[in-house]
Amino acid sequence: MAVCPEQEHPTKAFGWAARDSSGVLSPFKFSRRATGKNDVTFKVLYCGICHTDLSMLKNEWGVSMYPLLPGHEIVGQVTEVGSNVEKFKVGDSVGVGYLVGSCQSCDSCSNNAENYCPEMILTGGAKYYDGSTTYGGYSNIMVADEHFVIRIPDNLPLDGAAPLLCAGVTTYSPLRYFGLDKPGMHVGVVGVGGLGHVAVKFAKAMGVKVTVISTSPNKKKEAIENLGADSFLVSRDNGQMQAAMGTMDGIIDTVSAVHPLLPLLGLLKTSGKLVLVGVPAKPLELPVFPLISGRKIVAGSTVGGLKETQEMIDFAGKHNITANVEVIPIDYVNTAMERLIKADVRYRFVIDIANTLKSSS
Amino acid sequence: MAVCPEQEHPTKAFGWAARDSSGVLSPFKFSRRATGKNDVTFKVLYCGICHTDLSMLKNEWGVSMYPLLPGHEIVGQVTEVGSNVEKFKVGDSVGVGYLVGSCQSCDSCSNNAENYCPEMILTGGAKYYDGSTTYGGYSNIMVADEHFVIRIPDNLPLDGAAPLLCAGVTTYSPLRYFGLDKPGMHVGVVGVGGLGHVAVKFAKAMGVKVTVISTSPNKKKEAIENLGADSFLVSRDNGQMQAAMGTMDGIIDTVSAVHPLLPLLGLLKTSGKLVLVGVPAKPLELPVFPLISGRKIVAGSTVGGLKETQEMIDFAGKHNITANVEVIPIDYVNTAMERLIKADVRYRFVIDIANTLKSSS
Repeated sequence: MAVCPEQEHPTKAFGWAARDSSGVLSPFKFSRRATGKNDVTFKVLYCGICHTDLSMLKNEWGVSMYPLLPGHEIVGQVTEVGSNVEKFKVGDSVGVGYLVGSCQSCDSCSNNAENYCPEMILTGGAKYYDGSTTYGGYSNIMVADEHFVIRIPDNLPLDGAAPLLCAGVTTYSPLRYFGLDKPGMHVGVVGVGGLGHVAVKFAKAMGVKVTVISTSPNKKKEAIENLGADSFLVSRDNGQMQAAMGTMDGIIDTVSAVHPLLPLLGLLKTSGKLVLVGVPAKPLELPVFPLISGRKIVAGSTVGGLKETQEMIDFAGKHNITANVEVIPIDYVNTAMERLIKADVRYRFVIDIANTLKSSS
Repeated sequence: MAVCPEQEHPTKAFGWAARDSSGVLSPFKFSRRATGKNDVTFKVLYCGICHTDLSMLKNEWGVSMYPLLPGHEIVGQVTEVGSNVEKFKVGDSVGVGYLVGSCQSCDSCSNNAENYCPEMILTGGAKYYDGSTTYGGYSNIMVADEHFVIRIPDNLPLDGAAPLLCAGVTTYSPLRYFGLDKPGMHVGVVGVGGLGHVAVKFAKAMGVKVTVISTSPNKKKEAIENLGADSFLVSRDNGQMQAAMGTMDGIIDTVSAVHPLLPLLGLLKTSGKLVLVGVPAKPLELPVFPLISGRKIVAGSTVGGLKETQEMIDFAGKHNITANVEVIPIDYVNTAMERLIKADVRYRFVIDIANTLKSSS
């Protein structure tokens, strides 16, 4: 028999959840576990809205369980720590990203790549070890094992820092892992959205020359003047694309729509790397000859391990990198989802949880 | 006005060439340049038949120029060296592979990866620096700049060594470059043909555990007993494939027909590498989710640089690796091409040039 979410655990909690694949969010009462020995409990202050939240809300991948309470770009202030916790104390600014559990023993976990652990537990909409459902950050309070908690540098504003926990590390990780972080290198960033705009900032801070590649010529001014890109290519302009052939060491491709890879492979130097971080719903066409004749690589990458996430946000603190955000109240969240579908946001919605989420009881 | 091939250069030569895209080979008289200061001239003894020869003969890629004299797995004995040549002397056993020229100044050339030089000159059917056409190894004599000449280890039989100059380095190079050469690793080899069978031998000699993946269950016995593979997977057997999921560090995929990548990506561990060395005529379907959720790589690779080719054949000499060959007379070459289309060879045809190619004059 299913346990009522309100009575599952001792700590009362509330947030906004969807009850079915309509994806419409509405107030939801539930409960969190008591702070365990290794747990950190924190008051949620801000939570970013990731495109993955939208896909899960609408059950686009067929794996969603309802009620679904999303949110995995969560920041807040520690209110309680378990007896074994050494890294955090009450009052600290902390965050939780894409995952709250992993097996801690597989090759991926042993290599600080918990994000690739086959038994990884998602922050929202998954089963936790105790059999209860995980609920994400569109809620007033969060409890997580300290291994999965990130310290937020003091100098970063928490609203702009929240999206770094997913969008940030999703772009930072492949830049590091695939060696596209060397000063003087030339890296392309395809798409200027939640992921793309922080990819540009991280790559620039690493000393890399950055070219933004977009279908929209009207994003050029902002990409260069606001985000700091060195140059801009309109992907539909054959002349521009031809002129840039063979000039890039790597590309971070953030587009989640089906799109052609051939022009992007053409932009790469010999042995260049095209890294996909967006997930198109259908397979892409992979032309093999350009891959073979230039020893090129098409790779995928998703979020990052915990050590890497901490390193990413420390790097962001050092270089004053935050996401460009539009802060919204919780009761705007369904409208925000509609706007997200139309890519009508520059560049990330962040919910002001502390000031706008009220218990309805 | 086109110069007659027989009168273009001072040295008379003969071989078998195709006159049009029927691809039918017949006796052909031409000429070779005199031995230049940096050149090595050698009597051709054996020449392997690569699938690329067939594609070029039939103009499958739309770039063939006729008359076309193919052959880029050429071995023989030095008859003359230029005044600047230091690496070779008359009587040496030498070979020439896929390329006879490159710019020597680009990034690829500077990194001993002349095979990715944009100005690389193919051994057969390309334009050389002097404007003349390059002719391959289905001929009695060869002249090449010493930079593009490989020394064949004394202990290797020349007929079995010839295919190493293309098929050998095409599989050796990605094993090394993509780090799939560490003892204890597990590497899959897809397809057991000219490329696949030497991939198995090289990987085994590197100390890697090798699993052959093939559509044909009847190749199992030979793959294990003759080639030394550790295990064998029938790619159409879902049970076998499922049981092997997530077990391989990398895969060398030699198949040049259109085929699904999804099952192969499933065989890879997290961060595993699928390297394509065959060139399907049409794009392959690339499923993005498996790539992203396991930080996997799909890469391409073709032949190898000259330093690497020498290293490969020295390694082959040390480990007594040769291709399994069926030696044929030159007048069997058109029949051999028909059999190659049907993959009816174990595993490489090699033409006995010295004993069977006669001048028709």
